[in-house]
Amino acid sequence: MAVADRGQMEQWTWPARYDEAYLPADDEPYWFRVRETMPPEEREAAILERIREVMRWCWDRAPFYRRRCSDAGIHPDGIRSLEDFERVPVVTKEELRVTQAAHPPFGDHLCVDETEVAHVHGTSGTTGRPTAFGISRDDWRVVANEHARVQWSMGIRPADTVFIGSFFSLYMGSWGTLIGAERLGARVFPFGAGAQGQTRRAVVWLKEMRPSAFYGTPSYALHLAEVAREMGVDPRAFGIRTLFFSGEPGASVPTIRGRIEELYGGLVFDSGSMAEISPWMNLGESLARAGMLVWQDIVYTEVCDPRTYRRLPYGGEGTPVYTTLHRRSQPMVRLLSNDLTRWEAGPSPCGRTYPILPRGIYGRIDDMFTIRGENVYPSAIDEVVMALPGYGGEHRIVITRAEAMDELAVRVEYDQATAAAGDSAVEALRRRAETELRTVLGVGARVSAVPPGTLERTEFKARRVIDDRDLWREARRSV
Amino acid sequence: MAVADRGQMEQWTWPARYDEAYLPADDEPYWFRVRETMPPEEREAAILERIREVMRWCWDRAPFYRRRCSDAGIHPDGIRSLEDFERVPVVTKEELRVTQAAHPPFGDHLCVDETEVAHVHGTSGTTGRPTAFGISRDDWRVVANEHARVQWSMGIRPADTVFIGSFFSLYMGSWGTLIGAERLGARVFPFGAGAQGQTRRAVVWLKEMRPSAFYGTPSYALHLAEVAREMGVDPRAFGIRTLFFSGEPGASVPTIRGRIEELYGGLVFDSGSMAEISPWMNLGESLARAGMLVWQDIVYTEVCDPRTYRRLPYGGEGTPVYTTLHRRSQPMVRLLSNDLTRWEAGPSPCGRTYPILPRGIYGRIDDMFTIRGENVYPSAIDEVVMALPGYGGEHRIVITRAEAMDELAVRVEYDQATAAAGDSAVEALRRRAETELRTVLGVGARVSAVPPGTLERTEFKARRVIDDRDLWREARRSV
Repeated sequence: MAVADRGQMEQWTWPARYDEAYLPADDEPYWFRVRETMPPEEREAAILERIREVMRWCWDRAPFYRRRCSDAGIHPDGIRSLEDFERVPVVTKEELRVTQAAHPPFGDHLCVDETEVAHVHGTSGTTGRPTAFGISRDDWRVVANEHARVQWSMGIRPADTVFIGSFFSLYMGSWGTLIGAERLGARVFPFGAGAQGQTRRAVVWLKEMRPSAFYGTPSYALHLAEVAREMGVDPRAFGIRTLFFSGEPGASVPTIRGRIEELYGGLVFDSGSMAEISPWMNLGESLARAGMLVWQDIVYTEVCDPRTYRRLPYGGEGTPVYTTLHRRSQPMVRLLSNDLTRWEAGPSPCGRTYPILPRGIYGRIDDMFTIRGENVYPSAIDEVVMALPGYGGEHRIVITRAEAMDELAVRVEYDQATAAAGDSAVEALRRRAETELRTVLGVGARVSAVPPGTLERTEFKARRVIDDRDLWREARRSV
Repeated sequence: MAVADRGQMEQWTWPARYDEAYLPADDEPYWFRVRETMPPEEREAAILERIREVMRWCWDRAPFYRRRCSDAGIHPDGIRSLEDFERVPVVTKEELRVTQAAHPPFGDHLCVDETEVAHVHGTSGTTGRPTAFGISRDDWRVVANEHARVQWSMGIRPADTVFIGSFFSLYMGSWGTLIGAERLGARVFPFGAGAQGQTRRAVVWLKEMRPSAFYGTPSYALHLAEVAREMGVDPRAFGIRTLFFSGEPGASVPTIRGRIEELYGGLVFDSGSMAEISPWMNLGESLARAGMLVWQDIVYTEVCDPRTYRRLPYGGEGTPVYTTLHRRSQPMVRLLSNDLTRWEAGPSPCGRTYPILPRGIYGRIDDMFTIRGENVYPSAIDEVVMALPGYGGEHRIVITRAEAMDELAVRVEYDQATAAAGDSAVEALRRRAETELRTVLGVGARVSAVPPGTLERTEFKARRVIDDRDLWREARRSV
């Protein structure tokens, strides 16, 4: 294990030291050629070193981690293999909230002096106690440098202009994209989103500025295209070549991806892991577009059995568990995502030897609901409905209970063309949706077709599932 | 003129070269002691050098400036005094729009190759053609370093946490504050504003994070305090020591300033010149709080007669004309603000030898309206109304024409206490407003008092003047 000696490791050290002046040649596909294309076993040996360093760092500085490891009878020095590391208890988001409530504002998993926290962000959820992210100046540069690497793999270059169409606030998506693009030397256009009238203004500016790259959520890209068309502007006139996304699974759903590419005439790239993980671009697609790459030398990711939290063999479907390898202010060691994915061994056709998530992150363990004994993921419904010819751009999934029976209802908007074609066209779309949903889900759904523009659009993450079963349960309890 | 030799000039050169590692000691009141406290004549001699350098730069690279100077018979080498410089034609915002329409997207006043533009921002106006700001990487660092200086003079230090409560988009206010605070080494908390529910979330986070400094618009600070109180939170619980503002004249209006200080229990600082000027903190208050300082070595400012665009002697009231001394991507040479201010000679009690704007920017030349022969500035009305005991936090100014006579009407909200005190208290407030307005304006105004919460609040810049006279004119034309 002479990892530190290996010159070709491109200075992979703990702490991470990045040369801020470094930039590959424009026609070089890799930011760090050696690190991205090395044999996976070699990379894993180095990852094991990093893990031990991170764990020692946490052991020495964070009561939160030391307590958890002690309780599990684990010492950083005892981790001699990636299999050993699987015994380290996973951290849940709820535990982060609890430690922050007890040790405000950053929690006792903070591994630097509080005065070293230079950037504050957090979870943007509107309910419950939010979680604060305390990021040191050094870690901020780690995020910038590592996001630059991933954006480079998507083909973004210094000559590009990156339009950022997401809200700048707690949400690290916007900031992480911004500092990565800046580090890469691209021109940034952090337009933001979320204020009234902002989407119409975005259309005006996109037409004028013609940025070559767009970042946002898939929902927002669809909404923006709709607003553009209402204004008589074809989104293709923006001249966007690369659209990259995070925050929602949509960009890996073939029908959504296809729809966005059709609307904009550009290529779609998915990326992103979790709000609590920065650099969150540790999952991201390259130009090969064969699924999201698991950039293991940025954040070590284990796709785990959701009961045992042990790694699944490649080919398996499970939940990602993340360990940041370079963050020192608030490292995450085995953070449980409860997301759902399937992983495959690399290499990708782009030559990178990382594992691959061919369908990206396609659901959440806890989004799954059970209808008459069948496990149903909302993403599976999205995929069917959005692929329907005549789909009008929005839909809702409503789960109710009538009598003692779960009912799955889907409301689907049809488009203007279908509306113009008359009632029989609407009815044909409705029936086709019912047939295809039954095939894919193994359970029947009542589909109703609603006119264009009926359902509210979102500027951020789409929330399409309405579960009314609790109402029924409450009603029952009260009688 | 051996400016370049003077060691004590703290490396004031063209182009500006800032040592990014430099930081004064915490108890040092000045960022650059020599530059901030030198005799004004010495500074002016150096400014003249800078002006010639900026003008040569523009002459060589920007057809826009070369054309204008040639037409006026001026060559950079011919500028031998600040008086000579007054002959350079002022630039209007409209002219910037025209050059950008003719040479999209940045206009032919861009002085670097378009590929060097690293950051895109712009005017955030909702009507008319927006103006794009193209800022190079070097200029971005100029803004960061110079804003750090001004924030330092407000007493902001590396131990501070700066909460930024303004929208991150085109608006340079948010970004300029952010990069200045980062450069100064403070902790930044760029919370943003503008999305639905964001102000309530801000209250939750402010209570938890207790930042020592706040940036936003005065309107937003007042709105935020109101929302906090609705939620049962006293804004003083946020523990904010320093509140600094731009984007609106409010922070220099004694009653608004007093109101914000009373609500938050912190000190208010005004800053800011124009959206087109970056670094826009070239006008900013220091801890002495004796008015905004005119940081002449950042942006050279002339307070001019609004007809001749020649400098007024100190003591005079006129409109500021700005010349950026360090920006190379889109330098502004004699940009006309059409704002209204009065300037005085320095030094300020803080020891800085800059000129001073004792009442800040208190109006716009074109905001002024004429009512029955009297010139009225809306800011004068704001000042009277906001000082009324029982003022409920919002008001509107309505100018109408009934018959052939201009009418000035003011709608003023009263507060809950006045409402509780009954009709006679409301009537007393109304009468007092009428009396005081007549005294200050020299013209009568009809005041109506409206219940608390009647008038819409803004999260950004307040728009309180409604001029209905055009309606009357149109109605007349059509008969």
